[in-house]
Order: sequence, then C-alpha cells, then structure tokens
Amino acid sequence: MADGAGHMNERIQQFTEFRQRMNTRILEHENQVVRRFFALDTQCYKDGALEVKTKEMLGLVASLVLRCDDCVNYHVAQCRQAGVSREEMLEIFQVGLVVAGSIVIPHLRRAVDFLDQIEATPEASAPPQAPG
Amino acid sequence: MADGAGHMNERIQQFTEFRQRMNTRILEHENQVVRRFFALDTQCYKDGALEVKTKEMLGLVASLVLRCDDCVNYHVAQCRQAGVSREEMLEIFQVGLVVAGSIVIPHLRRAVDFLDQIEATPEASAPPQAPG
Amino acid sequence: MADGAGHMNERIQQFTEFRQRMNTRILEHENQVVRRFFALDTQCYKDGALEVKTKEMLGLVASLVLRCDDCVNYHVAQCRQAGVSREEMLEIFQVGLVVAGSIVIPHLRRAVDFLDQIEATPEASAPPQAPG
Amino acid sequence: MADGAGHMNERIQQFTEFRQRMNTRILEHENQVVRRFFALDTQCYKDGALEVKTKEMLGLVASLVLRCDDCVNYHVAQCRQAGVSREEMLEIFQVGLVVAGSIVIPHLRRAVDFLDQIEATPEASAPPQAPG
Amino acid sequence: MADGAGHMNERIQQFTEFRQRMNTRILEHENQVVRRFFALDTQCYKDGALEVKTKEMLGLVASLVLRCDDCVNYHVAQCRQAGVSREEMLEIFQVGLVVAGSIVIPHLRRAVDFLDQIEATPEASAPPQAPG
Amino acid sequence: MADGAGHMNERIQQFTEFRQRMNTRILEHENQVVRRFFALDTQCYKDGALEVKTKEMLGLVASLVLRCDDCVNYHVAQCRQAGVSREEMLEIFQVGLVVAGSIVIPHLRRAVDFLDQIEATPEASAPPQAPG
Repeated sequence: MADGAGHMNERIQQFTEFRQRMNTRILEHENQVVRRFFALDTQCYKDGALEVKTKEMLGLVASLVLRCDDCVNYHVAQCRQAGVSREEMLEIFQVGLVVAGSIVIPHLRRAVDFLDQIEATPEASAPPQAPG
Repeated sequence: MADGAGHMNERIQQFTEFRQRMNTRILEHENQVVRRFFALDTQCYKDGALEVKTKEMLGLVASLVLRCDDCVNYHVAQCRQAGVSREEMLEIFQVGLVVAGSIVIPHLRRAVDFLDQIEATPEASAPPQAPG
Repeated sequence: MADGAGHMNERIQQFTEFRQRMNTRILEHENQVVRRFFALDTQCYKDGALEVKTKEMLGLVASLVLRCDDCVNYHVAQCRQAGVSREEMLEIFQVGLVVAGSIVIPHLRRAVDFLDQIEATPEASAPPQAPG
Repeated sequence: MADGAGHMNERIQQFTEFRQRMNTRILEHENQVVRRFFALDTQCYKDGALEVKTKEMLGLVASLVLRCDDCVNYHVAQCRQAGVSREEMLEIFQVGLVVAGSIVIPHLRRAVDFLDQIEATPEASAPPQAPG
Repeated sequence: MADGAGHMNERIQQFTEFRQRMNTRILEHENQVVRRFFALDTQCYKDGALEVKTKEMLGLVASLVLRCDDCVNYHVAQCRQAGVSREEMLEIFQVGLVVAGSIVIPHLRRAVDFLDQIEATPEASAPPQAPG
Repeated sequence: MADGAGHMNERIQQFTEFRQRMNTRILEHENQVVRRFFALDTQCYKDGALEVKTKEMLGLVASLVLRCDDCVNYHVAQCRQAGVSREEMLEIFQVGLVVAGSIVIPHLRRAVDFLDQIEATPEASAPPQAPG
C-alpha cells in the first residue's frame, strides 16, 4: 500500500536520522571506553575468516534472540545489503525462533514488516551507519 | 475518560490489525519450521491436563518476567476471556513482580492500562488470533 | 538405579542444606530491605485469590523461562507437594519450552531428573524452606 | 533545537503523567504483595551505608544492562538530581556497555537523548515519583 | 596435559550420557507439544536455503549471547563436525562477545576449554544427539 | 568451619587458576577483536570521573542482575580489595535483588558464601586477574 510504505519510509528515515544524530552525540563525549567500544563494534563485522555476509547473519540472529528491535532492523538492512536472500533471512529467523521461543514472535513481526518496507523503498535499504 | 478510551480503543485495534496482518504475512513464506512453530504455539494453550485458564495464566506470567509487552497484552486478553478475575490477574502480576523484580514495573503499568481499556471497551476484549 | 538415586539423594540433601544455611546467613545481616524481600517472597505464594497450587505453577514456569535451576528445583518440589501431577508438570514445562525456546531444554533435562529423583526418594520431596 | 526540546518536553511530561497515574491505579488494588513491593522499591534507594547518589548509580547501571528504557530514564533523572555529573554519567554508561555489549547501544542513544532533554528543560528534571 | 584431557574426556562423556538419557526420558512422556518441539529443534538445523555449517554457527552465537553452556558446547561440537575452523570459531565468539558484552567471557572460557578438549580427544568430537 | 574453608579455599584456587589459564589461552589466538575487548574490559574499571571503588560496585550489581556467578565472584573480590565494607556489599546486593527479583536469590546465596570464604582466607582475597 502506497500509504503504508510512505508512512514507513518516514519511520525508517526518522530512525536512521535519530541513530546517526545520537551516535555522533555520544561520541562527542570525552569517554575513551565508549569510543573504543563503538570502534570495536564496527571492526567486529568486517571481512575476516568469516565473510561480511556470515557475520551480519550472526549479528542478526544474536539481536533477534536478545530481542532488540533496533539491532534487528539494523542487521536486517545490513544482511540485505550483503546479499542475504529472503529465503535465507527466514531461515535466520527460524533459528532465532526455535532457540529463543515464541517471545521472539512480536520482534519477528516487526522484522518482517521492516524487511517488506525496505524492499518496497529501495533507497531506504542503504544501511544506517554503524554501530548498533 | 471517553477520550482516553477512544484513543486506546484505536491503539488496540491497530495492534490487533498489525498482529493479524503480519502473522498472515509471515506464514505466506515457504518456511516449514516457522509454520510448525506457529502451529505448536497455538496447540500449546489448548485444554489438556491443565485447563485453558491455567495455561493462559502460565503464558501471562512467563511473558511478564520475560518483559514482552505484546505477549503480556495478548495473554491478558486471553486470560480475561478464560475467566480470570481482576483479583486473580493481580496475583499473577504479583508473582511476576516478585520473581523478576522492579524491572517488571513499567510492563505492569502498561498491562494494567491495557486491562483497564479492554474492560472499558468490551468489543475489544475479543482476543487477537494466536500465536504470539 | 539405586546408586544414581543414592547419589542424587545426597545432592538434594546438600542443595537443601546449603540453601537453608545461606538463607539463615543472609538474614543475619542487618539489612532491612533484603529481609523484607525474603518475607515478601514467602508471602507471595500463600493462598489468596489463586490457590497455592496455581501460584507454585506460576513460580515454576517463571523460573523455567528465566532459566534458574535452583529456582526450578525449588518450585518443582513445591508443586509436587501441592498436588501437581506429572502430566500437569509436563504441561507447565511445555509452556516454558514454547515461550522461551530450545535454550530451556538443558534446564528441562535437569528438572525432569530432579523430579525423577524426588519421586524415587520420598523423604527428599519435603520442599526446602522458602524463599528462592 | 527549540522544536525538538518542546516535543521531548511533551514526551517527558506524558511519560511522567502516565507513570504517576498508573502507579496510583496499580496501588488502588487490594493486593498487599504488590503494595509492599512498591514500598520496598522506594526504601531501597534511601540513604544507608551507601549514599543516595551511589545507589541511584547502581540502579541506573542495573536498568541499563537489563535494557529497560523507562527504568533507565527514571534513574538518569534521579542520578542528575543526586548530583551525578555528565562525565560520571558517561562512565556509568561505559560500565553498562562493556558488561552487556552492543545490544545496549540503542538504549544508550535514548538515555543520552533523555539526558540532553532534561538538561535543556530544567523544570523537567524533577524526577518522577518512585517506584520503577 | 594427559591428566586434564582424561578428566575432561570423562566430563564430556558424562555430559553426553546425561543428555541422551534425559532426552530419552523426556520423550517417554505422552506430551505431544514437547515431542513436537524436540522434532522441530532437530529439523531447524537441517540443510536448507542456508547450509548446515551456517545454521550451526547461528545456533552457536545465539547460545553464546543467551549464555547457556550446554547449548554452547553442543553447537561447538556440531560446528566442528560441520567444518568450522578454529579461526572461524573465534570470529563467532567475537560477535557474541561484542553483542552481549563481558558477561559472556566466563562462557567463552568454558567454550574454548571444551573446544580444546574435543580437539585433543578426537573420539569425543562426535556431537551428542540433538536436540538442545 | 576449618573444613569448609579449606574446601572453598581449594575451589577459589581452582576457579582463579582456570580463569587465568583460559584468559591466557583465549588471548593466544590471533583475534584482534577479542584481544581489544579484553583490553577494554580492563580499562573500563580504572580510576576516572568515578573512582575504582564505585566502578567495581557498578560492575558487581550489573553482574548480579545478569546473574553470572563467575562475574559476581570476581567483582565481590574486587570490591573488597577496593574497600567496600560488608554493610555496603549488602546494599549493593539489595539493589540487585529489588531490581531483578527473587531469581537473583540463588546467586546471592553463592555470593555471600564466596564473600564469607574470602574473608576467612585472607590470601584468597587477592582478586584474580581481569578481565571477566
């Protein structure tokens, strides 16, 4: 539905804008541990023994079982960018669902909705900047 | 307050609509594990050695200590439909509060608000379709 | 197996002894908040709008989804004492398993083992003193 | 930004109003365990062997690693009132971030945003009534 | 150290024996939801859009961030059997560590110890039967 | 009791030895993210805007509400070394207990037992090397 997509589009934009603004804001503070943690978080998903795609899938399932919507959305966008197909995405969800149970279902609904929306609005699929 | 109730009424409707639409959407995918999990989730709360009312109370306290608002709302509605009185509801909340601590309080506030609203708008108390 | 039961018997005894000794030890401290919390924990499972049996079942499923073996064992013993049949016990486990997923399975194995052992050694089924 | 601050101002007010209204609502019920728990929650942060400031910092880091936005906001306001500086606040966040990982980052963004807003709108920094 | 390896060897054997005995024991009960959940857990990691190796890596990181030693050990053994190298294993651990924080470290120590031991005692690396 | 203390003494020694051996073992791997995380974990508790004693108290309450015995023991030892009195220790426990509920009690029992033992065996109170 054009309306729904438009609405979500806006929500994705707001979410991305808030994330970037607050990440910048947090890093303005003279706190070296926080800054290093953010740098480590970015480094964590770089190509290594495991490729980016695999690492993003790991980040997604970890976020799902810990039930963090923002983290799930972030890694859904990253996974999509790294070439994870929808069928593969569902299998990541399936592992998260079996491991962590029905408590995951509300997050799954929001994750599939988010995925539908970024697929409907290609410009939105550019993943927000790391970290988190 | 008529206004508040009207507003919540709308929120309950939106929540129910989103849940149903996304459950349908999720099950459209050809993923047998996810489909079977959803079927199992429905089967889980059927009458057995324990009656539906008891099982819904178990689902409610489990959702509360795991701090999932959507799941709590769902089971609050189901419990009410199964004949759980408000006094009993409070004792379920009491167990969740003692077991999982003050971290549960924000969810308790939203649960009691939800319960107040579905009691004020009888047509809304028809529980949304399972699962989750 | 007589040997296994003897061994478990000993483990249940040690567990019960440690629990009682440390509860006493904790309450020796002049900390009113901790003391009141322990009193509240005991009060929580008393007969009320819900009967003891139901409350113990709620305590059990909450402990299971939060994955605390000591708490699970405690409430398994309390449930048994309150008249929960094995078939009902399995349905409590079933709700915990569906809500919180396969991560619960290792705790389920230990819970069923504990249940088997207290059924094999009737004198052990006297539940350890509350709280926790 | 005046607009953003005005908007947040409103959100803080709504949040505070909802919290107070629902706390009152919950305590209207004749449930002694719930009432005692709320009283204990208030007592918990009073001056003792540890001063209020330290206890509020403990409450903040506990809320952060358990990832409860409402609880984090509450303790951020309480900490500020108890004299925690921004530099100290960041070090509390740093401990929470290292202990509980990147899953905390979305909550950190909202906590820093909340802190910015209550600093920009001094009248809002009066902490909402306990508990939770 | 031969001694340590022998000792661990024994612990792995005990762990595997307990797991298998209790899985069998659990499935003896006439509880269809539990049985179906166990079947679903096995089905979940079968070859699909994602290959077994990837799914086992997802299961491992999910178990690590949820901090379940038994589940971590199980998936470490499964990953190794599926051809995950030690370097890849460390990158799975790295994602779990960054996502869920230092609270994961004690589990990481036990996971690396377990991995060392199954590498030192090849016959032990045959993964225990699913599920869990 | 001399016997109990001797036994615990041994357990503390084994725990410390295992921790140090496995930390060394983990850091032997060429994984820069893991190494940097461990360094960050050590840096996190250094003197800063907040003093070491306060940071260790934050680490302790965070470990307690996340229910990690090894982390709790580590921070109990660190707190003691930093001059936290037993009365203060109990107030940290009190905050953890109220925030995270009765599920914390088994960890509290083990924490108080650990504290008793390190007080009875002064040489054991030298805290194990960071991190974790």
